[in-house]
Amino acid sequence: MTIDFKRDVLAPVAHDFAAMDQFINEGITSKVALVMSVSKHVVEAGGKRMRPIMCLLAAKACGVSDMTHARHLAAIIEMLHTATLVHDDVVDESGLRRGRPTANATWNNQTAVLVGDFLISRAFDLLVNIKNWDLLKDFSTGTCEIAEGEVLQLQWQHQPHATEDIYLQIIHGKTSRLFELATEGAAILAGQESYREAMRHYAGHFGNAFQIIDDILDYTSDAETLGKNIGDDLMEGKPTLPLIAALKLTHENTEQHQIVHKSIATGGTSHLEQVISIVKNSGALEYCLQRAKEETEKAVEALQVLPESEYRQALENLAQLALDRIQ
Amino acid sequence: MTIDFKRDVLAPVAHDFAAMDQFINEGITSKVALVMSVSKHVVEAGGKRMRPIMCLLAAKACGVSDMTHARHLAAIIEMLHTATLVHDDVVDESGLRRGRPTANATWNNQTAVLVGDFLISRAFDLLVNIKNWDLLKDFSTGTCEIAEGEVLQLQWQHQPHATEDIYLQIIHGKTSRLFELATEGAAILAGQESYREAMRHYAGHFGNAFQIIDDILDYTSDAETLGKNIGDDLMEGKPTLPLIAALKLTHENTEQHQIVHKSIATGGTSHLEQVISIVKNSGALEYCLQRAKEETEKAVEALQVLPESEYRQALENLAQLALDRIQ
Repeated sequence: MTIDFKRDVLAPVAHDFAAMDQFINEGITSKVALVMSVSKHVVEAGGKRMRPIMCLLAAKACGVSDMTHARHLAAIIEMLHTATLVHDDVVDESGLRRGRPTANATWNNQTAVLVGDFLISRAFDLLVNIKNWDLLKDFSTGTCEIAEGEVLQLQWQHQPHATEDIYLQIIHGKTSRLFELATEGAAILAGQESYREAMRHYAGHFGNAFQIIDDILDYTSDAETLGKNIGDDLMEGKPTLPLIAALKLTHENTEQHQIVHKSIATGGTSHLEQVISIVKNSGALEYCLQRAKEETEKAVEALQVLPESEYRQALENLAQLALDRIQ
Repeated sequence: MTIDFKRDVLAPVAHDFAAMDQFINEGITSKVALVMSVSKHVVEAGGKRMRPIMCLLAAKACGVSDMTHARHLAAIIEMLHTATLVHDDVVDESGLRRGRPTANATWNNQTAVLVGDFLISRAFDLLVNIKNWDLLKDFSTGTCEIAEGEVLQLQWQHQPHATEDIYLQIIHGKTSRLFELATEGAAILAGQESYREAMRHYAGHFGNAFQIIDDILDYTSDAETLGKNIGDDLMEGKPTLPLIAALKLTHENTEQHQIVHKSIATGGTSHLEQVISIVKNSGALEYCLQRAKEETEKAVEALQVLPESEYRQALENLAQLALDRIQ
């Protein structure tokens, strides 16, 4: 059976999801008209809202009955995610995101940076209203780690000696950590101390799989279906897993090895065609796919601590769906 | 007697100030080397640390005996201030701040935006450790208002019909609000509910005076003494008080009025010399100076609720010193 996002992931929390969306709109309300227009623009440009949906499903799966705080938490997660996208678009000078003009392109860099700052602050403000110390500490530490992960990625740009371990540290910070906050936060709201670790592991492994798949797609997708340009990572000299694996699977003194090595070191896409074929022929893609599968398996395994429910099943479906992107 | 910053402002809290500085260094510790280098660079490029000193003085003036939390709070204030400067430098594409290369110039925009985000998150993380709900709520709301104030400033760029009231809203957000957090936060730590309002008023009026003076200097200072270029605000079409006053003090159908009106609307410095002389000859500068004096008087008046002490005196000296910049 093919997994369908709406039917097999969203449906069990569709009602909470609608309420959460309404809460995001209240959250970005501001007496400053420009803050509101920009926030509205960037929040509406959001994608599938995977992170808040994960948060809502996790809350239900952990046994939360009154979903008020969980809806707020899901909105907070999405606002934090949106803030990072807005800042990413400024630093990457992106003009489009998911086919829509970015905030920096529609307004300017100043507005985009400041509205990003506003969204971070408002997310914390809404979080404070929930009045839960454990939750607050988890988020304040987590957001530091997210920023650190993004800087670590910059630090390793153009470094061909990056290892898989370094890569995992980077993607944990820049991607998996926010997923972890979404699900562990839900377990905290449920008051289920014993579920915290399981929920964190689910989201952490899911996030790793999700990012590995994203990095594979940078060498295999076509631009039209994804809104992502092939070769973006290579352009920036990012040592992602497909390249790290390709370096490991080719011998140091081969031309293939040297082309990948040099491409990371210099960035640019002048050897893009060659790098793509090396990644494919060296077995690097198979290796990455295998790693994504392993991470997905670990994610699903972590869920088994929770009692069986349609919500747990939906979390499992979501993990499977992410993997389906490349199969 | 001329007020001396070190002797008449800093001295009463010199010991706490040194400990606070140490705490900032611990606060910016990160396992990511690049995060640490950039944070260290931008924190060290800081100026007189007026905001944390104000926080320490306010804590003492409100009767705080154990200064541990106050030192932490002062460090948090400085970290938030630093984060806004780092982001400002990115959006203004500034290469120098106080004669030192900016983070965006030394590294790049990406690094600067992300380290700014890290500093905001770390500031919240340290704040959560103090475990005081009132303090946390004040800061989470306040940081939203600061971002909103900065966006409001962008919204009113190139708008000659901005009023003094709009101007006051802008400077309250972008400047005074952080000063308020510094002193009201100290009153919260002191557990002195009755001092909260007085401390907020002191800092709010001080901040207004400070910003009005800064805006006067944009039309009167020389670049060498200030590290600020004359005409920066005019360049960006910012309707600051000197221009708002000049428009009010000249008749609509005069050439002078039209030059100022047009300069705000278009930005640029092609009429800088003329605008400077209009600001001076129309009585706008005197008006601004008068307003700065009034704000300073209100700041000092608000202090009178506190018991007399060397700390209260130092806060009064600080307000006086800010005014001395233009006399």
